[in-house]
Amino acid sequence: MPTARKTTAYRPSMTSAGLPPTHSVDALDQEGGLLHTRIAGEYPLTIYVDGREVVTLMTLGTYPETLALGFLRNQRLIQDIEEIASVDVNWSEESVHIATRHGKGIADWEEKMAHRSVTSGCGQGTVFSCVLDKLYEVRLPRATVDRSTIYGLVKAVAGENEIYKAAGAVHGCALCRGEEILLFVEDVGRHNAADTISGRMWLDRISGNDKIFYTTGRLTSEIVMKIAHMGIPVLLSRSGVTHMGLELARDLGITMIARAKGKQFIVYSGGENIDFGG
Amino acid sequence: MPTARKTTAYRPSMTSAGLPPTHSVDALDQEGGLLHTRIAGEYPLTIYVDGREVVTLMTLGTYPETLALGFLRNQRLIQDIEEIASVDVNWSEESVHIATRHGKGIADWEEKMAHRSVTSGCGQGTVFSCVLDKLYEVRLPRATVDRSTIYGLVKAVAGENEIYKAAGAVHGCALCRGEEILLFVEDVGRHNAADTISGRMWLDRISGNDKIFYTTGRLTSEIVMKIAHMGIPVLLSRSGVTHMGLELARDLGITMIARAKGKQFIVYSGGENIDFGG
Repeated sequence: MPTARKTTAYRPSMTSAGLPPTHSVDALDQEGGLLHTRIAGEYPLTIYVDGREVVTLMTLGTYPETLALGFLRNQRLIQDIEEIASVDVNWSEESVHIATRHGKGIADWEEKMAHRSVTSGCGQGTVFSCVLDKLYEVRLPRATVDRSTIYGLVKAVAGENEIYKAAGAVHGCALCRGEEILLFVEDVGRHNAADTISGRMWLDRISGNDKIFYTTGRLTSEIVMKIAHMGIPVLLSRSGVTHMGLELARDLGITMIARAKGKQFIVYSGGENIDFGG
Repeated sequence: MPTARKTTAYRPSMTSAGLPPTHSVDALDQEGGLLHTRIAGEYPLTIYVDGREVVTLMTLGTYPETLALGFLRNQRLIQDIEEIASVDVNWSEESVHIATRHGKGIADWEEKMAHRSVTSGCGQGTVFSCVLDKLYEVRLPRATVDRSTIYGLVKAVAGENEIYKAAGAVHGCALCRGEEILLFVEDVGRHNAADTISGRMWLDRISGNDKIFYTTGRLTSEIVMKIAHMGIPVLLSRSGVTHMGLELARDLGITMIARAKGKQFIVYSGGENIDFGG
């Protein structure tokens, strides 16, 4: 994942404890012959904020610091990157310790935990109710997209998914501006990949307003919520959409393009923003 | 989902509140032309046991009663189907109320909640620590599998994924005996599909010991844990495996076959149980 932009803005002190994404294993092919192959890593990573346990994520482990930051940002548990003093990953403890500068932990933590809705089924663990409360405060800009940009992006992301090509079992997400891929992240969960991108945007003060978010995964309600919180008005997926994902996208004014492969795509929401001749 | 076996054993009283799996929507194709298409449903379903909230799942909603039962079984929150008096789904409240016969709720609930590890990233929400505690009590039988059976199953499941073919955005799981598909369930999360199969096995007293579990999804640690709890010794996937999923499968003696498409597959664990000439 390249750093999209150099910045002199405040940054927390951070470890750099990314793990190699794949492991070599011996397996058998369909003839019973020995096959040296690679598989994706998967590790538990427990996030602590000022010593308090928040969540355990299962992750590929390549960008644990930005993943933890993006999780806290996307769940609206910490409002401002400048509140964070340090991000300290320790794999021998399977933990990432985040210290705030005020040292008081997450504001209204007890209340947030009590109203936490633990979800499953769509590749995500937890939606804190504060996410839903704040969702409809989001105001996304209107963005037009040329068809040629969609085609260009679909082609460009095909060259990026290195871990998937080597080992499978991961999803990829990309932050794009026009046809340019600024960040591409793969993880065992598409939500982790989205959170990692969000963390990097937080660190580098990257606005979502002029961006397109691409994912290989499905557009369920939870991924649409994240993209809205990241301020990104256009969502592009190789996979399909669910009904709740679509209803949220329509309510929030997100342009939602899915089933994008080769020269085909379907615009489920925001069709008026697509320039089919462009 | 056909009922695999008629049984006269005790059954809780249950609603039958399955929803249609897909919705008709109007979208635009890549030429800007109107496209009438279908998308998968997605609904929150909050599980209550004797009035206490346990979890909210995001689901397609086709088998809410068996999903709720299978979740409680796979998370080891209730030990015996005979403890359950009724399963009452109410979509207007997005809830399923489960009443136990003893009316005392989940045993040691406070302790289980305190040690809950909320996970994300692999399509699942919650692993209660009791799942991990009991995992290594599992004793799976040794099962041999003929290559022709693997080929037969891969072919057979291709005819079953009706919702995926109509709307995408779902994963499918199947309970199989030899080349016969006993149950096939699709859901917006592969964990929900696995839990629904587990719920049906519980209701119908179906043993996992002589079965094969098929999934279109990835074999992460959490899905391997569920299959072990369901007593199924052979796991077959169209997708790949993660390192932690593979380590668990090897520890538990599960035969793990993945990347199975057409005439290709890879045996990651339990190669000695495959008859490549069979």
